[in-house]
Amino acid sequence: MGNRLRIGILGGGQLGRMLLQCAANYHVTTYVLESGVHSPAASLCHHFTDGDIRDYQTVLNFGRQVDVLTIEIENVNLQALFELEQEGVKVIPRPHALQTIKDKGLQKQFYQTNNIPTAPFVFTETADDVTKAGIGFPAVHKLRTGGYDGKGVEILKSEADVNRAFNQPSVLEQAVSIEKEISVIAAKNELGETRVYPAVEMVFDPRYNLVDFLVSPAALTPAQESEAQALALRVMEALNSPGIFAVEMFLDTTGKLWVNETAPRAHNSGHQSIEGNYCSQYDMQMRVLQNLPLGHTGIIQPSLMLNLIGEPAHTGSVMYSGLPEVLALKGTFVHLYGKTETKPGRKMGHVTLLGANREELLAKADFVKQHLKVVSTS
Amino acid sequence: MGNRLRIGILGGGQLGRMLLQCAANYHVTTYVLESGVHSPAASLCHHFTDGDIRDYQTVLNFGRQVDVLTIEIENVNLQALFELEQEGVKVIPRPHALQTIKDKGLQKQFYQTNNIPTAPFVFTETADDVTKAGIGFPAVHKLRTGGYDGKGVEILKSEADVNRAFNQPSVLEQAVSIEKEISVIAAKNELGETRVYPAVEMVFDPRYNLVDFLVSPAALTPAQESEAQALALRVMEALNSPGIFAVEMFLDTTGKLWVNETAPRAHNSGHQSIEGNYCSQYDMQMRVLQNLPLGHTGIIQPSLMLNLIGEPAHTGSVMYSGLPEVLALKGTFVHLYGKTETKPGRKMGHVTLLGANREELLAKADFVKQHLKVVSTS
Repeated sequence: MGNRLRIGILGGGQLGRMLLQCAANYHVTTYVLESGVHSPAASLCHHFTDGDIRDYQTVLNFGRQVDVLTIEIENVNLQALFELEQEGVKVIPRPHALQTIKDKGLQKQFYQTNNIPTAPFVFTETADDVTKAGIGFPAVHKLRTGGYDGKGVEILKSEADVNRAFNQPSVLEQAVSIEKEISVIAAKNELGETRVYPAVEMVFDPRYNLVDFLVSPAALTPAQESEAQALALRVMEALNSPGIFAVEMFLDTTGKLWVNETAPRAHNSGHQSIEGNYCSQYDMQMRVLQNLPLGHTGIIQPSLMLNLIGEPAHTGSVMYSGLPEVLALKGTFVHLYGKTETKPGRKMGHVTLLGANREELLAKADFVKQHLKVVSTS
Repeated sequence: MGNRLRIGILGGGQLGRMLLQCAANYHVTTYVLESGVHSPAASLCHHFTDGDIRDYQTVLNFGRQVDVLTIEIENVNLQALFELEQEGVKVIPRPHALQTIKDKGLQKQFYQTNNIPTAPFVFTETADDVTKAGIGFPAVHKLRTGGYDGKGVEILKSEADVNRAFNQPSVLEQAVSIEKEISVIAAKNELGETRVYPAVEMVFDPRYNLVDFLVSPAALTPAQESEAQALALRVMEALNSPGIFAVEMFLDTTGKLWVNETAPRAHNSGHQSIEGNYCSQYDMQMRVLQNLPLGHTGIIQPSLMLNLIGEPAHTGSVMYSGLPEVLALKGTFVHLYGKTETKPGRKMGHVTLLGANREELLAKADFVKQHLKVVSTS
């Protein structure tokens, strides 16, 4: 394949899949490591390796074939990445940045060290430590490592919830009094060029029976928007690594911003950028990996992104009901992730809507939510 | 892979590649038949078969694995498609429509029979027939079968050019006095639902040293636009087949429209729809293949599509010079087709530009043309 850049991706889920859809616009050769030949990304790359991204030797062997190695999930073997970096493989994000983020304890300390506003916290080893911490309630208890997609996080509303606390190394945080949840994606290439996307907002609108969707742009004051973008940039600069970073924040009821968590990769909160922004988060990642100029993050049209989640009580071979109704709507973009099996709560796809304004988007989203269901065939 | 629709594509070039980038948004299993494991589409499908799309038995065996079979190039074994249709495989476009289009003689007669305006023509068997035809000059001589991408077509400006005429079954047409070349893409699903895209225009602007690009929308009067869309619909309806059809037309110097040629598939003149229109031609094709509601063809922003062609005197392993300069422009979308080898005139990729208006687009295109070059590494 001659002079093509060889790009390796650790993880073959939907983020890898969407990255590969975009990678096909570039002169690169793609490699994916994931367990299971039916993974979402398996059929869209040049070379698929069926293996465990958490295994040292597997990641080492995989990484040695490529010029640039990236991730689509944090839960990878870090020791192998440090080793590959030593051997001259370009790893993006840098292993040291991934190490800081993978452990939510180190991540919180990192915010503290760098004067990045984040909710006060203590470390706990056992559920007993929660009571002793004296941090008050409500509080949020998070496993330091291994949590993913809402797993490994418990909201402790009062002392009575302490029975749900973790008996493993965890972070206990004071709950922020949340006005809005927002996310800002930032990117940096090896030349040091940086870009920040406009903030998106996770909306929980009681008028519509909707959860798990976001709107771009977020409804923020211009000052809040600049502060959010500046904060995302500061997090990325402090991490001192090229890559793409999703910085999730809370706007509290007093108007102050707090960083909740950072993901050192493309993120669910950036899916809408595929259609809604000039440069999608996946195209941005491809540019970073190739050390090309970064793209423009501006909004083409306001957008809304709705996750398609496996319906409760449906487990097994997946089918999508209501697709025709939804596809008949103008400005609807359906992304199904190619997963064979559905189960309750599993992310199976998403729908992005383009629209003139937030009201139009909310009404369309309500229609989508009512019609499109992820169910099992039996 | 359970209940997924199995979609087969005959041909694995750039049109197949872009269809597969889009197919990954749906719950389908993809099969591609093409000669050469390094074809643009080979690494983006579930099942790749290395074989000749012109071979009866190869196409028959390939088609028997799938539920729906489509094409990305006309030059396929027609007999096998008729056979597969008999056997119950859904073939889109229908073999009878493909048969009409594949032979430029039958295609011209089809326009005549259906009162679709097309340039007067005669059939020729030898170069001598050209002189005898008495159709006058300038004239256009086209091989009835086997021509592709500008090959198999000769412009005969005067009697002196007859030495370039074909000694094979051909169509000799009176040359239209062309004001503009336009293209309209139409789509139809099996439910009989139809959609037409706004016309695009092939621009040859002497102010800019540009060839081989198109602008969306075409600069037409509202009456010309409706007539062009109506004509494309009439061609599609007369072909009596579901599918996606690119109808290339001339607007002559008196303001009259003539159909030049139809392609029963996605087309170079629809590439800009990926970013420029709500539903891309590839998404439209995916909807047709799944018999889903057709998408909205409206324009999101004016766009310009520029083919990236192998530079003269460059043959061999490809590289792209000037990519950083071009990617730094706002609203630039680069699509490289993953071809390993370049040669003079070969289509290696395209760039789509989004912009507020035609002037902005032309200036950007000029910049792209000056900077981005398809060259060989040695």
